[in-house]
Amino acid sequence: MSTGSHDAVEVIGAKRDKHELSDSQIEWVIDAYTKGTVADEQMSALAMAILLNGMDRRELTTWTHAMIASGERMDFSGLSRPTADKHSTGGVGDKVTLPLAPLVAACGVAVPQLSGRGLGHTGGTLDKLESIPGWRAQLSNDEMMRQLEEVGAVICAAGDGLAPADKKLYALRDVTGTVEAIPLIASSIMSKKIAEGTGALVLDVKVGTGAFMKDLARAHELAEVMVALGNDAGVKTYAAITDMSTPLGRTAGNAIEVTESVEVLAGGGPADVVELTLQLARDMLTGAGREGVDPADKLADGSAMDAWKAMIRAQDGDPDAELPVAKESHVVNAPSSGVLTRLDAMAVGLAAWRLGAGRARKEDPVQAGAGVVWHARPGDEVTEGSPLFTLLTDEPERFDRALESLEGGYDLAPTGTPFTPAPLIHDRLR
Amino acid sequence: MSTGSHDAVEVIGAKRDKHELSDSQIEWVIDAYTKGTVADEQMSALAMAILLNGMDRRELTTWTHAMIASGERMDFSGLSRPTADKHSTGGVGDKVTLPLAPLVAACGVAVPQLSGRGLGHTGGTLDKLESIPGWRAQLSNDEMMRQLEEVGAVICAAGDGLAPADKKLYALRDVTGTVEAIPLIASSIMSKKIAEGTGALVLDVKVGTGAFMKDLARAHELAEVMVALGNDAGVKTYAAITDMSTPLGRTAGNAIEVTESVEVLAGGGPADVVELTLQLARDMLTGAGREGVDPADKLADGSAMDAWKAMIRAQDGDPDAELPVAKESHVVNAPSSGVLTRLDAMAVGLAAWRLGAGRARKEDPVQAGAGVVWHARPGDEVTEGSPLFTLLTDEPERFDRALESLEGGYDLAPTGTPFTPAPLIHDRLR
Repeated sequence: MSTGSHDAVEVIGAKRDKHELSDSQIEWVIDAYTKGTVADEQMSALAMAILLNGMDRRELTTWTHAMIASGERMDFSGLSRPTADKHSTGGVGDKVTLPLAPLVAACGVAVPQLSGRGLGHTGGTLDKLESIPGWRAQLSNDEMMRQLEEVGAVICAAGDGLAPADKKLYALRDVTGTVEAIPLIASSIMSKKIAEGTGALVLDVKVGTGAFMKDLARAHELAEVMVALGNDAGVKTYAAITDMSTPLGRTAGNAIEVTESVEVLAGGGPADVVELTLQLARDMLTGAGREGVDPADKLADGSAMDAWKAMIRAQDGDPDAELPVAKESHVVNAPSSGVLTRLDAMAVGLAAWRLGAGRARKEDPVQAGAGVVWHARPGDEVTEGSPLFTLLTDEPERFDRALESLEGGYDLAPTGTPFTPAPLIHDRLR
Repeated sequence: MSTGSHDAVEVIGAKRDKHELSDSQIEWVIDAYTKGTVADEQMSALAMAILLNGMDRRELTTWTHAMIASGERMDFSGLSRPTADKHSTGGVGDKVTLPLAPLVAACGVAVPQLSGRGLGHTGGTLDKLESIPGWRAQLSNDEMMRQLEEVGAVICAAGDGLAPADKKLYALRDVTGTVEAIPLIASSIMSKKIAEGTGALVLDVKVGTGAFMKDLARAHELAEVMVALGNDAGVKTYAAITDMSTPLGRTAGNAIEVTESVEVLAGGGPADVVELTLQLARDMLTGAGREGVDPADKLADGSAMDAWKAMIRAQDGDPDAELPVAKESHVVNAPSSGVLTRLDAMAVGLAAWRLGAGRARKEDPVQAGAGVVWHARPGDEVTEGSPLFTLLTDEPERFDRALESLEGGYDLAPTGTPFTPAPLIHDRLR
């Protein structure tokens, strides 16, 4: 990468004054920030200027590729089958990666899923899988490649080598109020996914109270920007904009979400998790050039479950082991009979987090058994005194604050009130 | 000062999202930044958000008072006479403080002028005075008070105790492209002037190529904001918006500007320097309640010169000593006969800086004798081959780059071309 000679104040000043940054300015500033010659306080001022004044498609493409160029790139072209990956912007009860990766693998497409741990009210895929006895998240590149060839699906921790500029910038944005810039969100996600080397990518952009994006217009904008970035970089990229005003499935936690995922792989499970898993699987298969395969068949014939077990075993996990169970539980009963018209994803996510399923700081441990089970979904009739929520934790002193989170987090209307739940999939981009 | 409990991301996010910051948010963030619990990268993101989204008058007043509250305040209420000060936003050849302070003192108003050193193309008042043998810029508060009572005028270095939050923030803004935010410029200047404890204040807001503010509308906005801040804080504040497209007087440097200032005090000197000095003196006297005194009389009767000599002597300087002279000089002659229609302040300022009159870094020394003398001002007729500029430096290798600065820095029109120079004083606010 050739970079001209610039200085930080010039680059910040250009974006502050609403000019387009040149390719040379962008390449220089990302490179210099990675090396530490552009200081954190300079990058945060630039990030705020980008947040408020935006970047156009050419700037964003250059920015993303400069982040990719800051680190290593993976290459799966040596595999005997095509690759497809999926990224979710994060939601409550979003365990879809767990059934999806082995399901797509069972359809003949390799899934190299580099995941993260959870922070805040949305859970982390690695945290969920780590509730399986023996399972390990860290794989070498060689192990990952072998598993992709032999099993077809890997869910493991992303190494430090991919887009180190993004890692540094993400930590900075987190403390400087600059997380919410669409160009920066898009380039953060896409730099890692492009560097990862997947052939196709499906983005699940969540929208609603429990999602990072609270309104549909912004979710749409983010999805469009990411789809353009991916396709420009030669990654066949689709996106679905899906609801996160209601949590997904019936559980939010770690082990309890693994159990729910296994139910889906066994051909059961909550209808919304099944619907979203199949839709994302179809898009991944189409992106990888395998649109002829129907993933529903692979759930029905047990081959997705076989791929799941092989994937877990390949990473030293025991797919048949008992999963950890929380030491304490507390049931919240319905205060009256009626129809559930609202179940707030943020309220449920916060409750699960406060019960110990998530972490406040990166270095905190999580409880494998903690979380929330909800016994009704919007549209369901409930009877006064019947269980509405079950709260799970190893530390009963956590119940009070979790109950606080759930207060005001749902609405019951009189029995018989007509109610149609919001659609799960708002839109699809391809 | 009572401050609520806030966190940096919340405060940054509020301004990012175009909300007004509460008094409590502002007081908290300035206090926490001074203490170091709000990090530089957080403050620079906030500064960029303020630059792009602004602050209203109430926010700005609170911000300024929070900066004042970060340090000590001086108090001149024990003096037997009223106080008035002047602040210039900085220009080329702007030596006005030197004759102004003793002139106003000679009119019975004490002038506590806390000054700085120059950085970049605009000179520093202390650098100029330090060309006088023996003169020292550092005074204790007691020395300053005694000199104000006995002589009536002090020009000295500002201590570290006034508005330390501003000092820290100014250094941060300098490297993060956030210098040009009007609310931040205004609060930086006014926090120091209000903390200094002056009773009246006259602001000389420069506009033009050689000034920080390049256009009249922004200069007006800055002046209005500062006048409001000063008056809200009980400091009688006036402002003049004055031209800095052309440099002031006939010289830009250190010793050569002292010489020009002494000419003004002796009743001579360039007309523009005299005009501006008298106008600012009249405004300072009015602000201090002494509008009955005519400062022109004090130039004519020698009492302003007496005050100058007393002021220099009180700080161990010898007002009658020979001033340092540059070792080398180079004369630029007029390439043709004609009328000078433009003399660019930035070009002259850069030339003087490159000759050694100014510094590139805070710790650099300056040359006392270096600088530029211009022998014609816009409107003057010049004859081919007559001297147009004299360049002065101790290091002749500096001539080339100084000459480069002056190229294209002036225009000559054919002799007899009608030309009216721009007004020196564009506007006055009171």
